[in-house]
Amino acid sequence: MDLEKITAAQLRERIRRGEWQTPTSGAAYGYVQANLVMLPKSDAFNFLLFCVRNTKPCPILDVLEAGVFEPKIAPGADLRRDLPLYRIYRDGVMEKEVATVTSEFNEEMVSFLLGCSFSFENALQAAGVPVRNIDEGKNVSMYITNRSCVPAGPFRAPLVVSMRPMTPEQAVRAVQITTRFHLTHGAPVHIGDPDQIGIKDLQNPEFGDPVTIHPGEVPVFWACGVTSALAATSTPLPLVITHAPGHMFVSDLKDEDMTIF
Amino acid sequence: MDLEKITAAQLRERIRRGEWQTPTSGAAYGYVQANLVMLPKSDAFNFLLFCVRNTKPCPILDVLEAGVFEPKIAPGADLRRDLPLYRIYRDGVMEKEVATVTSEFNEEMVSFLLGCSFSFENALQAAGVPVRNIDEGKNVSMYITNRSCVPAGPFRAPLVVSMRPMTPEQAVRAVQITTRFHLTHGAPVHIGDPDQIGIKDLQNPEFGDPVTIHPGEVPVFWACGVTSALAATSTPLPLVITHAPGHMFVSDLKDEDMTIF
Repeated sequence: MDLEKITAAQLRERIRRGEWQTPTSGAAYGYVQANLVMLPKSDAFNFLLFCVRNTKPCPILDVLEAGVFEPKIAPGADLRRDLPLYRIYRDGVMEKEVATVTSEFNEEMVSFLLGCSFSFENALQAAGVPVRNIDEGKNVSMYITNRSCVPAGPFRAPLVVSMRPMTPEQAVRAVQITTRFHLTHGAPVHIGDPDQIGIKDLQNPEFGDPVTIHPGEVPVFWACGVTSALAATSTPLPLVITHAPGHMFVSDLKDEDMTIF
Repeated sequence: MDLEKITAAQLRERIRRGEWQTPTSGAAYGYVQANLVMLPKSDAFNFLLFCVRNTKPCPILDVLEAGVFEPKIAPGADLRRDLPLYRIYRDGVMEKEVATVTSEFNEEMVSFLLGCSFSFENALQAAGVPVRNIDEGKNVSMYITNRSCVPAGPFRAPLVVSMRPMTPEQAVRAVQITTRFHLTHGAPVHIGDPDQIGIKDLQNPEFGDPVTIHPGEVPVFWACGVTSALAATSTPLPLVITHAPGHMFVSDLKDEDMTIF
């Protein structure tokens, strides 16, 4: 069975049965994948405000009322069980990674689903723009920049970016293509000199893997959803739940639903 | 002095001194005007959720922490005094219209500034697309449709739309132009048959004025910020403050800052 071809609902069903415990990159091709953040409702307004004030790294796909775990963007899904791997944070410190959070989730928890760059990676590839991390079978390179997000209440974070190298001509095409995907990070935040945004060494990403940069290529940087996890854990809340890196929630939305034109 | 040419800051200064008490349409040309909703912080998460779930009628320009009245999109401004006219609602019922809300505003109140169609009207006119309400010196025609917004907590509202008549060719151009303005209602929600969205008589708008529709023209409908006021007053909160219709907050943002490409 071709794992690229299964639907989002089929993939979630496998995950729920414990038959899929690995990253979701490349699975259920064409369906929108999402970052997950769950936190107590007492801080939900401020976290939503953080997302609204920083829409490029934290584009909102769905926010659920406290205690609700079935998202509107995937009817029948259960956010407590349908991701392959979760992280549990207590008082701002990661406690463990777990396969379900049914016992941790409670009536006070508000769930946020935020857009992810997998959507535009598909569109880049379809247009012949290289996505080096996919071509090399790696996780995308991610860096903490010297740019600060706009804080909200107790939540603050530096802007985290992902990077894909390409020729300048491909970079122009990539700007055009990703501009359409404003709910999944949109256009790049920077092209070229990493030093200008506080990145010292492209071969030493803070998250993910380094990738090959060929002569004549420039690094192109997009806002990255990891920013939301840094923000959610930037203040010692009693409980925060996120997806484990790369182990995203796969929604019923299609990538093309995410485009503005 | 040409009132179109004054800056947003100059206009707000006049308003604060009590020298401008009329609608803001056409004043401080090129600056983004905004709908205002203020409500208690106990319901702020749910109202923010309503806006996030209904971004076409309720595009978020700025949300302030409880008790704060200086918006990020207009440093130095005072949301309690810098609009020409406000409406005060208590328990969901309009109590009065007032020129300042300094005595009503308190530490519990959260302020929302939401995009307004004045931004794209300027762009339409610049492209030679007629804006009939401006040409006839009227308020735009607004209608309550049979479409429901996605509710959030106690907040619910029908989708309210504004209408501008034009030729089919101009309607195509208007779609292109307003797509760029995704933070000020974006592309139309409907073109043509009013009956399909529950509008019985175009000459009888629920808000604003009727305008002339010439033979061969089609009505083009955009989501309208009045939706946010209906939502905010759809549940009996102890205090809600909004702008009075047409008497908007004029921010320091420029219309072109609002475009996605």
